[in-house]
Amino acid sequence: MAQNSNKKQVEQITDMEVDFTQWYTDVCKKAELIDYSSIKGMFIYRPYGYAIWENIQQELDKKFKETGHENVYLPMLIPESLLQKEKDHVEGFAPECAWVTYGGTDKLEERYCIRPTSETLFCEHYKNIIHSHRDLPKKYNQWCSVLRWEKTSRPFLRHREFLWQEGHTMHATAEEAEAETQQMLNIYADFMENVLAMPVVKGQKTDKEKFNGAEATYTVECMMHDRKALQAGTSHYFGDGFARAFDITFTGEDNKLHHPFQTSWGVSTRMIGGIIMTHGDNNGLVLPPRIAPIQAVVIPVAMHKEGVLDAATALLNRLTAAGVRAKMDASKQSMGWKAAEYEMKGVPLRVEIGPKDMEQNQCCICRRDSGEKVFVCLDQLETAVKELLDSVHEGLYNRAKKNLEDNTFPAFSLEEAKQIQQEKGGFIKTMWCGDLECEMKMKEEAGMTSRCIPFQQEHLGDVCPICGKPAKHMIYWGVAY
Amino acid sequence: MAQNSNKKQVEQITDMEVDFTQWYTDVCKKAELIDYSSIKGMFIYRPYGYAIWENIQQELDKKFKETGHENVYLPMLIPESLLQKEKDHVEGFAPECAWVTYGGTDKLEERYCIRPTSETLFCEHYKNIIHSHRDLPKKYNQWCSVLRWEKTSRPFLRHREFLWQEGHTMHATAEEAEAETQQMLNIYADFMENVLAMPVVKGQKTDKEKFNGAEATYTVECMMHDRKALQAGTSHYFGDGFARAFDITFTGEDNKLHHPFQTSWGVSTRMIGGIIMTHGDNNGLVLPPRIAPIQAVVIPVAMHKEGVLDAATALLNRLTAAGVRAKMDASKQSMGWKAAEYEMKGVPLRVEIGPKDMEQNQCCICRRDSGEKVFVCLDQLETAVKELLDSVHEGLYNRAKKNLEDNTFPAFSLEEAKQIQQEKGGFIKTMWCGDLECEMKMKEEAGMTSRCIPFQQEHLGDVCPICGKPAKHMIYWGVAY
Repeated sequence: MAQNSNKKQVEQITDMEVDFTQWYTDVCKKAELIDYSSIKGMFIYRPYGYAIWENIQQELDKKFKETGHENVYLPMLIPESLLQKEKDHVEGFAPECAWVTYGGTDKLEERYCIRPTSETLFCEHYKNIIHSHRDLPKKYNQWCSVLRWEKTSRPFLRHREFLWQEGHTMHATAEEAEAETQQMLNIYADFMENVLAMPVVKGQKTDKEKFNGAEATYTVECMMHDRKALQAGTSHYFGDGFARAFDITFTGEDNKLHHPFQTSWGVSTRMIGGIIMTHGDNNGLVLPPRIAPIQAVVIPVAMHKEGVLDAATALLNRLTAAGVRAKMDASKQSMGWKAAEYEMKGVPLRVEIGPKDMEQNQCCICRRDSGEKVFVCLDQLETAVKELLDSVHEGLYNRAKKNLEDNTFPAFSLEEAKQIQQEKGGFIKTMWCGDLECEMKMKEEAGMTSRCIPFQQEHLGDVCPICGKPAKHMIYWGVAY
Repeated sequence: MAQNSNKKQVEQITDMEVDFTQWYTDVCKKAELIDYSSIKGMFIYRPYGYAIWENIQQELDKKFKETGHENVYLPMLIPESLLQKEKDHVEGFAPECAWVTYGGTDKLEERYCIRPTSETLFCEHYKNIIHSHRDLPKKYNQWCSVLRWEKTSRPFLRHREFLWQEGHTMHATAEEAEAETQQMLNIYADFMENVLAMPVVKGQKTDKEKFNGAEATYTVECMMHDRKALQAGTSHYFGDGFARAFDITFTGEDNKLHHPFQTSWGVSTRMIGGIIMTHGDNNGLVLPPRIAPIQAVVIPVAMHKEGVLDAATALLNRLTAAGVRAKMDASKQSMGWKAAEYEMKGVPLRVEIGPKDMEQNQCCICRRDSGEKVFVCLDQLETAVKELLDSVHEGLYNRAKKNLEDNTFPAFSLEEAKQIQQEKGGFIKTMWCGDLECEMKMKEEAGMTSRCIPFQQEHLGDVCPICGKPAKHMIYWGVAY
């Protein structure tokens, strides 16, 4: 029914099978998630898009605090001399920094970059406040925006300015820092699977793909609907490299000076791009219920009939009281318009009530993920809605999981990898010798970068199919956003 | 008791009667609210300071949403040409902008300033999304940091970068926009009085002191412990000035084109400076309970004795379950150290329990505001703690209210105003003709700026005591932070 009545609205977005890129941009605009500003690559997070980020923040912030992290806020500007203290780090980031050279009418003696990430600032602060083993661990997190002056941009996926969180921690031992790195990766993975309904592959980045200045980078990789990869979150182990570069020391229980061991980890509004491309369809956005700004929209049917508006309001109030993020649309727009509108916005459940439903003490609930309609007895409203929200979550997760599993292929030669990539896309798994040369070759010949060396290893053979040398790991390749 | 045992800690901060400025800086540092960065005027919000801001955010954000506002996030950079569109606005802000001139290695064709405030960005966005009367009102708010390249700086009171919220709204009629301006000022005033325990004077700024580009600026003014004034929040009415400058129009119900009417309003981390200077004492910070990160700290007495730690843990768990932000300190530090530490951090209640208390089914609660100790029967723990927190709030509010009332003086000549200012400080109220010339004279001769024309007017005479011309208003003067 909705499929017919919302035809007009649906015509406004490009079919995802025809042009996935255009479909994506259409959804970002029509679902009112984002708008363009006059500076290329700098986007406006509109209320509906920002509300998704607020829900993400709330969930993650709770997890961070439960695991003993504290929020702080450090300055947005980094003096050039500070950025240069860690050699690998500055090499990676300096080319894409935006530089402040004037304060008011005065030319600055030293130029400052707007933070592309804040390792150097945290190190400077940690040097001031870490003196003894009693000052450790320090487990800080910061919610802020960062700037990277990139050439190309796409809503949520690549902004010159984007919102994120960056955790930065310092520990007395390498083991503790390594454990922190893993813990945070697991928090990200659980969050993506249990809240965003996005299945992940957990693993380690190759040396080529790791963060500038890190000893090891761990990642959660997701597969989008078009079978491309999205790096959705990373967690880095730094050893004591930055601590040495910044001369951060503490007196240990042994009364000697030591360098602390460091981690950082972050996720960004890029995840919203991931949500769109994992769950969306040709009717628009499909939001996982646990972060949807509106979980259920109540729509009165035949509003002019006596009692309908009261009945709908009662539904809304009951849902709100039960902790469901609900909204009512009692506007004069047609039922078809409303159906299309809330489909476009990806609202998980549409709850309709009209005179006939009232007679039968029921309402009609339509699921966004499947289009399925069920009639629910009003006595069971709260329970039924909560079960349906969980069911939508499961439905989305399972569909995405199937997409991931159905599109992960083993390959046993470079030629085969290339062919699979061209014909099917997805993740391609091979053995790998560990050499940069073979990684570069895969990039040049098959157009794929290494996604990660998954923690869950499989034995696909004894040799690297690219060079024939003994294999060290099984690795995932893919074309990534 | 605590007064003796914490002597050593207390010696670390300057007496507020001796040097209020140094006392303030000491509190900011020793209570671990803030730290300095390597860029002058850019500060680090440490966990304890940031946690106060998070509590402020949570309370205000709820109020903003209840009154129909939505959060958004706009870019941090403003092209110079955009900033220049409204003449008064750019004149006020351009001298203190930080300018970005390079993106990576490329010199930018146009330089961008880091937002000192975002009216121009919101106008650009509103132009894109407002077309019809059905698109109005737009009631947006943004939580972010802004940059103002000022010459002098002080923790919380004057940062080159500070955290704030900025509301920006657009309305179909002037009346509606004026009502919004007043509503938000009232939300600020209620928040300051009922949450921060800071009594306020509400009023309108003079033309000289109003926001650059506004038709009218309303303000809440507070009095600090040293009798100086703090402008704690402002709400601006713009008429359709920006809308005309940015060519924002909508089709009204009359099918004609109109310019919408605009407001903006903001409060910042400056309020934390206000909290410190309103409530603090010579033992350190004193936090109003409703935004204190720790409302009650549980301290086990004679921890080595059997059952004490369990009893203290039980207390902690009961308080947490009752929604009190509680923490336990079971560290090996002395009782004296702990008393001094939580006094310095301004924790409203210290809850002690030891073997003797356990025998008597009680705990001992010490109030931070008065130092008073009360024994509370454990059966009444939750109720008693909540009542005490409310009582601390009332106590702080009443003390601050008394300070405000006792130090607001009428003056009937410029000479008298000058003399009161020199001898007592505080707010000085006079009649005023409304002319800039008299306002400047008060500044030059008595060192005071106009604080506001209070909404609650009093009749102190018929003429302006500065020039002798007929008076238009009663006005407050003061020395301000």
